[in-house]
Amino acid sequence: MITVAEALAQVLPLAPRPEVETVPLRQARGRVLAQAVSARLTQPPFAASAMDGYAVATAEVAPGDAFHVIGEAAAGHPYHGTLGPGQAVRIFTGGEVPPGGKRVIIQEDVQRDGDQITLHGPLDTGPHIRPAGGDFAQGTHVSAPRSLDPAHIALLAAMGHSTLPVARRPEIALLMTGDELRAPDAIPGPGEIIGSNGYGLAALFEAQGAIARLLPIARDTPESLDLALDLAQGADVLVTIGGASVGDHDLVATTLRKAGAKMAFHGIRMRPGKPLMAGRLKDMSVIGLPGNPVSSFVCSILFVLPMIRRALGLSTEMPELRLRLTNDLGPNGPRQHYMRAKMDGDGGVLVADNQDSSLLSVLARSDALVIRPPKDAAKAAGDTVRVLPLP
Amino acid sequence: MITVAEALAQVLPLAPRPEVETVPLRQARGRVLAQAVSARLTQPPFAASAMDGYAVATAEVAPGDAFHVIGEAAAGHPYHGTLGPGQAVRIFTGGEVPPGGKRVIIQEDVQRDGDQITLHGPLDTGPHIRPAGGDFAQGTHVSAPRSLDPAHIALLAAMGHSTLPVARRPEIALLMTGDELRAPDAIPGPGEIIGSNGYGLAALFEAQGAIARLLPIARDTPESLDLALDLAQGADVLVTIGGASVGDHDLVATTLRKAGAKMAFHGIRMRPGKPLMAGRLKDMSVIGLPGNPVSSFVCSILFVLPMIRRALGLSTEMPELRLRLTNDLGPNGPRQHYMRAKMDGDGGVLVADNQDSSLLSVLARSDALVIRPPKDAAKAAGDTVRVLPLP
Repeated sequence: MITVAEALAQVLPLAPRPEVETVPLRQARGRVLAQAVSARLTQPPFAASAMDGYAVATAEVAPGDAFHVIGEAAAGHPYHGTLGPGQAVRIFTGGEVPPGGKRVIIQEDVQRDGDQITLHGPLDTGPHIRPAGGDFAQGTHVSAPRSLDPAHIALLAAMGHSTLPVARRPEIALLMTGDELRAPDAIPGPGEIIGSNGYGLAALFEAQGAIARLLPIARDTPESLDLALDLAQGADVLVTIGGASVGDHDLVATTLRKAGAKMAFHGIRMRPGKPLMAGRLKDMSVIGLPGNPVSSFVCSILFVLPMIRRALGLSTEMPELRLRLTNDLGPNGPRQHYMRAKMDGDGGVLVADNQDSSLLSVLARSDALVIRPPKDAAKAAGDTVRVLPLP
Repeated sequence: MITVAEALAQVLPLAPRPEVETVPLRQARGRVLAQAVSARLTQPPFAASAMDGYAVATAEVAPGDAFHVIGEAAAGHPYHGTLGPGQAVRIFTGGEVPPGGKRVIIQEDVQRDGDQITLHGPLDTGPHIRPAGGDFAQGTHVSAPRSLDPAHIALLAAMGHSTLPVARRPEIALLMTGDELRAPDAIPGPGEIIGSNGYGLAALFEAQGAIARLLPIARDTPESLDLALDLAQGADVLVTIGGASVGDHDLVATTLRKAGAKMAFHGIRMRPGKPLMAGRLKDMSVIGLPGNPVSSFVCSILFVLPMIRRALGLSTEMPELRLRLTNDLGPNGPRQHYMRAKMDGDGGVLVADNQDSSLLSVLARSDALVIRPPKDAAKAAGDTVRVLPLP
């Protein structure tokens, strides 16, 4: 059996290579910027007023000063002329400060009489002028890779980009296998259950930025599995769920090998989810997950999500927290244990009582995995543990 | 001028009423479950083996015990009979434990010879049987409202649901107004800039669960604004950006009133983003945001996102953190200030030097807003402040 880190080192090279595609700005949310983008424009392109008021040609003003209003500058409607001493231009927020303008007097500090304005105090400090290029200059870079959040989308729009180079989303085909599995709207017969893992994992992979393609459930027959492999064609990664154990009924590995796959089988020193398959079938990477719901989830978080992040050009590091246990834990066995747990938002984490790897209800109530190293000694409430927040 | 809390109390009643629609499970990711859903099935529906091995009719076993193998039970292929003393059924993970079965002996502890098995020690504790209903019983509720994460999607699938009742996504029409605004792919002329806010806010609203419809930029003419109001028809909320100040060039409020809108104008004691309009135009709510990029963002976070959350049936509370300042701050003025800042992941938060409300570059580098109450005294590095993480 190998460690989680050793398994990840073997799985990561199977990640699809990052590729770049171009999308319109309106479809860039949640995508990963794949190449640094530089500003096509300078912002503001000109010295602009930060307030509604009057632009004047001096920074030094005092109550009682008077100016002659020679024109008006509004956003999109510049004043075509130069400001001289004793002159003022009526100006609105975002309007271009005319050449010669040194300060904007806010309108609240002004008494206007025809074309004449007189300042009254107390005057604020000003100057209420946003310098040209104060936000960014032409050529300023937004670095990549980075996930595009709303603020960066606005920034890149302001920089003059209507399309963006983003990482192509890897496509993952998901295959649930098992004679016992039925669709969620079925009435299960004797010995049957609903095949639910694929729905959860498809959502997990999509949330990480992949495209998920959920294949029809395959029966435990070579014919059914062969058909599924056909349906998976074109995907970057095929993720099989179930049939990755070493039981007599595990046909998935055999069928994959017959189809030409080069597969390695890993027993991983971890709980839940000991068995994992990984390999290549023609142009497709293949990951075989165990069939237990929680095992398939935890293995996906540890191995498939890093593959997706690598395919998107992002770091594959999984950011951990260190939190205080709020309950006692017995000693851990020989395998690294990822225990379902709930954070309290105040530095504490409560590990669920029942850690059976079949319990979706416990997983759904959890928002984190507490990581116990192999042979970790018993822990008491208050002890610090490593925590992997669930995505 | 009114406070942020007073403004929110006036804006929230304008949120669209929550409505329920049904979506297929595969489209439920990120949606909000609108009604409690109960399990159609029990999981596991039968006592199931947690391991590959042999089911026997006694919980008390010892090395050397021998059993006669009478049949086989695999997932989806139950054994049709009852287990008696001295008998064993070959069983695989997920297989139904036959009536009479009390324990599963894992295959590693068994020597098989034809139809005979003999146990060898040391035996583990067992019993490796998952009781019927151990995950959930028929009728168990998943409560609502709740955002549907991958684990809940898997759980609801296992409960036998192929579709889910979710909150209808409110539709928000976004209108940028201003003669100075051009599209991101344009070459701005004198006095012109790119209209960027709408792209960022559309992404912000979509990330919160709304449908965003970005309208063409409107010019500062009644005709252009009237056309935009026509194009907004059918949306639940119209969000206008710009023209919500009190300057001479603010036609938006006038045009809305002429179209029959009942609008209230609020000066809010906050920075950035003092001016806000709110009201109703026929069947549509209308929110008028200031035009500065950062002001429109902060006002959206404080007022529009809570409206979206209310429309989805979720709590409108904005969860705050308390973090340590890593730089000094001068005293705050009379308005509540939402300062762009960056969290260091270790309990600290650094407030950006330049808080000008036009700076998208500063917003994009930030991941939080530090909240300063009106007339807050100067703060030193190490002092604790209220922090609103950016969504």
